[in-house]
Amino acid sequence: MAEKMRAMVKAKAAPGLEIQRVDIPSIGPRDVLVKVRAASICGTDLHIWNWDAWSQSRIKPPVITGHEFGGEVVKVGEQVTTVVPGDFVSAECHIVCGTCYQCRTGQSHICQNVSIIGVDRDGCFAEYLAFPAENAWLNPPDMPVEWASIQDPFGNAVHTTLSTDLTAKTVLVTGCGVIGLLAISIARAAGAAAIYATEVKPFRIEKARQAGATAVFNPQEVDVVWEIMEATQGQGVDVLLEMSGHPQAIKQGFALLKNGGYAALLGIPGRPIEFDLANDIVFKGATVQGISGRRMYQTWYQSRALLNSGAVQVDPLITHHFLFEEENFKKGIELMAAGECGKVVLYLDEAEMEAAKRKRRERPAGRSFA
Amino acid sequence: MAEKMRAMVKAKAAPGLEIQRVDIPSIGPRDVLVKVRAASICGTDLHIWNWDAWSQSRIKPPVITGHEFGGEVVKVGEQVTTVVPGDFVSAECHIVCGTCYQCRTGQSHICQNVSIIGVDRDGCFAEYLAFPAENAWLNPPDMPVEWASIQDPFGNAVHTTLSTDLTAKTVLVTGCGVIGLLAISIARAAGAAAIYATEVKPFRIEKARQAGATAVFNPQEVDVVWEIMEATQGQGVDVLLEMSGHPQAIKQGFALLKNGGYAALLGIPGRPIEFDLANDIVFKGATVQGISGRRMYQTWYQSRALLNSGAVQVDPLITHHFLFEEENFKKGIELMAAGECGKVVLYLDEAEMEAAKRKRRERPAGRSFA
Amino acid sequence: MAEKMRAMVKAKAAPGLEIQRVDIPSIGPRDVLVKVRAASICGTDLHIWNWDAWSQSRIKPPVITGHEFGGEVVKVGEQVTTVVPGDFVSAECHIVCGTCYQCRTGQSHICQNVSIIGVDRDGCFAEYLAFPAENAWLNPPDMPVEWASIQDPFGNAVHTTLSTDLTAKTVLVTGCGVIGLLAISIARAAGAAAIYATEVKPFRIEKARQAGATAVFNPQEVDVVWEIMEATQGQGVDVLLEMSGHPQAIKQGFALLKNGGYAALLGIPGRPIEFDLANDIVFKGATVQGISGRRMYQTWYQSRALLNSGAVQVDPLITHHFLFEEENFKKGIELMAAGECGKVVLYLDEAEMEAAKRKRRERPAGRSFA
Amino acid sequence: MAEKMRAMVKAKAAPGLEIQRVDIPSIGPRDVLVKVRAASICGTDLHIWNWDAWSQSRIKPPVITGHEFGGEVVKVGEQVTTVVPGDFVSAECHIVCGTCYQCRTGQSHICQNVSIIGVDRDGCFAEYLAFPAENAWLNPPDMPVEWASIQDPFGNAVHTTLSTDLTAKTVLVTGCGVIGLLAISIARAAGAAAIYATEVKPFRIEKARQAGATAVFNPQEVDVVWEIMEATQGQGVDVLLEMSGHPQAIKQGFALLKNGGYAALLGIPGRPIEFDLANDIVFKGATVQGISGRRMYQTWYQSRALLNSGAVQVDPLITHHFLFEEENFKKGIELMAAGECGKVVLYLDEAEMEAAKRKRRERPAGRSFA
Repeated sequence: MAEKMRAMVKAKAAPGLEIQRVDIPSIGPRDVLVKVRAASICGTDLHIWNWDAWSQSRIKPPVITGHEFGGEVVKVGEQVTTVVPGDFVSAECHIVCGTCYQCRTGQSHICQNVSIIGVDRDGCFAEYLAFPAENAWLNPPDMPVEWASIQDPFGNAVHTTLSTDLTAKTVLVTGCGVIGLLAISIARAAGAAAIYATEVKPFRIEKARQAGATAVFNPQEVDVVWEIMEATQGQGVDVLLEMSGHPQAIKQGFALLKNGGYAALLGIPGRPIEFDLANDIVFKGATVQGISGRRMYQTWYQSRALLNSGAVQVDPLITHHFLFEEENFKKGIELMAAGECGKVVLYLDEAEMEAAKRKRRERPAGRSFA
Repeated sequence: MAEKMRAMVKAKAAPGLEIQRVDIPSIGPRDVLVKVRAASICGTDLHIWNWDAWSQSRIKPPVITGHEFGGEVVKVGEQVTTVVPGDFVSAECHIVCGTCYQCRTGQSHICQNVSIIGVDRDGCFAEYLAFPAENAWLNPPDMPVEWASIQDPFGNAVHTTLSTDLTAKTVLVTGCGVIGLLAISIARAAGAAAIYATEVKPFRIEKARQAGATAVFNPQEVDVVWEIMEATQGQGVDVLLEMSGHPQAIKQGFALLKNGGYAALLGIPGRPIEFDLANDIVFKGATVQGISGRRMYQTWYQSRALLNSGAVQVDPLITHHFLFEEENFKKGIELMAAGECGKVVLYLDEAEMEAAKRKRRERPAGRSFA
Repeated sequence: MAEKMRAMVKAKAAPGLEIQRVDIPSIGPRDVLVKVRAASICGTDLHIWNWDAWSQSRIKPPVITGHEFGGEVVKVGEQVTTVVPGDFVSAECHIVCGTCYQCRTGQSHICQNVSIIGVDRDGCFAEYLAFPAENAWLNPPDMPVEWASIQDPFGNAVHTTLSTDLTAKTVLVTGCGVIGLLAISIARAAGAAAIYATEVKPFRIEKARQAGATAVFNPQEVDVVWEIMEATQGQGVDVLLEMSGHPQAIKQGFALLKNGGYAALLGIPGRPIEFDLANDIVFKGATVQGISGRRMYQTWYQSRALLNSGAVQVDPLITHHFLFEEENFKKGIELMAAGECGKVVLYLDEAEMEAAKRKRRERPAGRSFA
Repeated sequence: MAEKMRAMVKAKAAPGLEIQRVDIPSIGPRDVLVKVRAASICGTDLHIWNWDAWSQSRIKPPVITGHEFGGEVVKVGEQVTTVVPGDFVSAECHIVCGTCYQCRTGQSHICQNVSIIGVDRDGCFAEYLAFPAENAWLNPPDMPVEWASIQDPFGNAVHTTLSTDLTAKTVLVTGCGVIGLLAISIARAAGAAAIYATEVKPFRIEKARQAGATAVFNPQEVDVVWEIMEATQGQGVDVLLEMSGHPQAIKQGFALLKNGGYAALLGIPGRPIEFDLANDIVFKGATVQGISGRRMYQTWYQSRALLNSGAVQVDPLITHHFLFEEENFKKGIELMAAGECGKVVLYLDEAEMEAAKRKRRERPAGRSFA
């Protein structure tokens, strides 16, 4: 009989999540079993908690949620040669088919048959999770576990931000949630000439400034198009990194894009929006790039390099450290809904959490935050 | 006192155009004066004729219209060293400032301060026109004058089609006006694996087949998304060349674009449209490129190479040869409005027109048309 | 006890190859066993036959040689889901590690730990061969078996030729062995404005003309730099495809490259050569791209598209059809050494060979050969 | 009769330079006359001083040398509209034809008919110089004049370093002269993961460390290939920036380049070298880019952004401030020959020099130097 573990389960087709005792997953010949040390909450988890339209169409309860984590390999399938028990790993949460056109041509991040950990299959808000060894990403042993945990959203930011070369360029980041804030840090590390940002929530505006934004504008208070045109001597920006999915922010972003500019779109509008293709793309000769997931595994190598070299400092964006308990998870969800947090990390072990908090206070501040 | 010439003038803020006797233009030290041999009618001229919303906002009567032509240099300014009287030239119709960021970085086709021949300044529906020598493009002496005349729209098609490498790729052209038809021919010359096209007008559907389309679908008769998905084994197309500006065609085009696909947009929707950024760009990881004008002068070199090598054959797309008279111009406008023509060329001299028609009958059919 | 088969073996560290009776290979859980229908001889096989310096350093006898083939899957390992017995396949001959930096970032064609079929492990000059299912490439059932067989060198040519966009560009191919000839055909299919070639052997010069070269020059008879400069009005070529590995051809190729030009290098000089970096690369602002193998599996998709669409016609390059016998193999090696053949194909079954030859006579000539 | 000025003249075909009194240059309708405030000495000037083989083949005495400077516009030709007297400018020293293929396609930095200030025509080691207004680059009024002066070599470094995206990548700079040192600073500003450098001169090794190199190796003391392979866990580097032109450094650089790596070559070997194309480019699938001059005017915009934002700090590389006198020039030449200096700047006015030195002491140290 399978051993049991605690896991945060979307048990039925309704709002909320609950901790249940479930079987520890078994593994196939090419899988790994990982003991979770820390897991962080993503905006996707908020959608699933809320049981919104997207969740209703995608999630098939019961399913264990969560896809951002760092943990220890405790068991590997018989054909696994790339990791061994004891390894400290995170996971690329896109399990891909390996056989479609995209997978066979180096574009598996847009696989036609993707299955996502914590969405389409059991995830990491649990003591253990199982996934294909191919998706395991080996972390440096001394990497803080909460850094390991947030590599998935960090990777979204890296994929978006480094999808073009922005050294010596002017950049606009629309939307300063965690990924937007990370994009600001990364753009600064990449030598952007100036980084403008738009955001409405005071907590995030303040974080955006700390992260290295040249100036942050609140569209509820000022005319951001006028302000940023002024700041760029009427030229507009070279690069737009769209992180909000908000129709108004998208409109402003494209209005500010220079002729010949580049826009990377990561934010997801909830529905089709009115869009001025003629003026915003055609006449401008603009280039627009849709961004999905993380490039496998180019983005992970880039992320490791940026974190290891200290070029990007993520501590200030990890704002809450909680034990893995139902009430703490709920608290995290509430903070996120209010826009009053950076990343919320859940630790499976109290001693590990306290050690993480202590080490963090002792780390030097790094280059990218004031 | 200046000598006079005949010219097709938008004389006042109202529909229509009329032939008037006006002064032959004078030239500055860096300009050329060209005697027009043949000029062709563009969709832009139809807009100006109709005095639509765009025309009303842009055109300042009186102005001589027309920007597609081939002619003979008859006079050059004192500082001009690149062309001499007797040269056979056409013109890049975008007169650029040379000093803005785009002009100073090899992107003058999206100059911030462009002035367009036949739109913002006097054009080529006249016996003579003047423009900067820098914009003169030297044609091979033996190039058919009607080919010379259509290099401007040909260049739009080249710029769009060759903005990505489409050898061995599947391509969808939405909208088979003259530029869409040229795009089909060019895509075929470039070794596209298959070229699908959508169009509603029977005349153009037939021309699209002749131009080398693998299959042409009429969205008023069939479900083009279903048909082209079927034809591509459910993969969709690698490349979308959007030539219609029609909201429905744009929607179908993006629905058919493969994950990781490339869309070049030349068509101009008349107003903002509803657009599904999330599904059509973001999740697909699609790349979208706005196309404006012709790259100066990369596109012109490419066009010359494609025409000279016989890789693309334009004769079948030049469907009407008229003398430059008011009633003929009106007839051309009517044909265009009905979608029952390819390119309409106006000749200034009857003997030249007859010679052009005769030579055309004698030319071999070329590779790209059946 | 294992069943036996005939195989062409490099039995010992000395020139030559011999047919031996050996065990039919066994397969692992992720492998396929393929019954060979046709195999073709590569320049690499000539090196191995000759037991030259490279072979001595690389080949560990005994090994079955050969890596170009088309055959039928007869058995698959228990974990194989992508092919089934009866499928008609060829193979990507580079068996890659899947775990090095290059493999993990979409560049497995330059895997650090590659093992090559017919070089580092048993190959296809045999009745059967085994290899990982991942390397199996499914052919259309009606593809001529000799076309299937040459997809490996065809892929080298595709990878080289389509590593840049050459529509409307001038191209120089130095060296017209089989891959150079294929490159000419592909460049023509891709809409190159003009294709110049250099070659010394009369047989190949003639084939290069048939394949679509605008002009072919023999460096033993004329000054090729002078001739091609003349042909390009002193501009030189946009693109160099270096297919010879010959120091003099490389020197001429770079001398002819336009400022800002692109050179793809596939040919392998036998030893370091004297190279004028300053004039041939630095001052020219040239871009040089090394080409190794075939992109996995982008190149294979491109190859299929070019062959299926009829854009490239390979029949005229497959010049010899032999039965798989020791003396025939030797004859093929001699023809290759003399430069008096295109591709030599060996058939395992006489009836299949005769059918292939008959069908070939019945096929229309296609677009790319005169 | 023309007014006179002091100028450093290559008066005859022999080593050395001398200050002479010559006519202040006159200007044409599209030129500017600039009063030089500061000029810096380039390696090219050392070649000209030494009257080496290259100088003998290129320089036609008498000619005023020098091409790096900052100065004030004092007079403009009648057709000049882009600058006015009083403007603070530097110059792109490549005067281009504007009509060749490269100039007409956005690649004027590799113009076929270039004429270089201070090489092919009179330069800036003088009180005044004249050049086309098109080549004038407007500096911010408050830019230190010595920064303005070194934008030409800074631009070489920017063009080389930013010819690829090196954020999160490992970089090797071979040769730490002034341009190599600038490349290190720029690579650091661009977020390179690690920057290795090779150099033999102790002064430069020390500067390279200050500029942000992760590690600097002296090939006369250690096995640099072994050391850097060790430092990169046997992977080699993603990007090689070749700044030495030295055969041994080039060899080491390519030996260290990763499969699929990118090499930008700016250094000029004095003669053809032995080069292992097969192993260093072909099998590696490497990309090699020759770098000449500065992209017009993309590089200048990038340079301004990097200097203005403080991302790159050049003060530590400007090591000597001299008055414009013959003996000081000679001293500068000697320092350069010995490799014991960074940039040597010559001021035309003593008060300006003293002010520059004072302001420099007062500036904060910036991000890029320790």
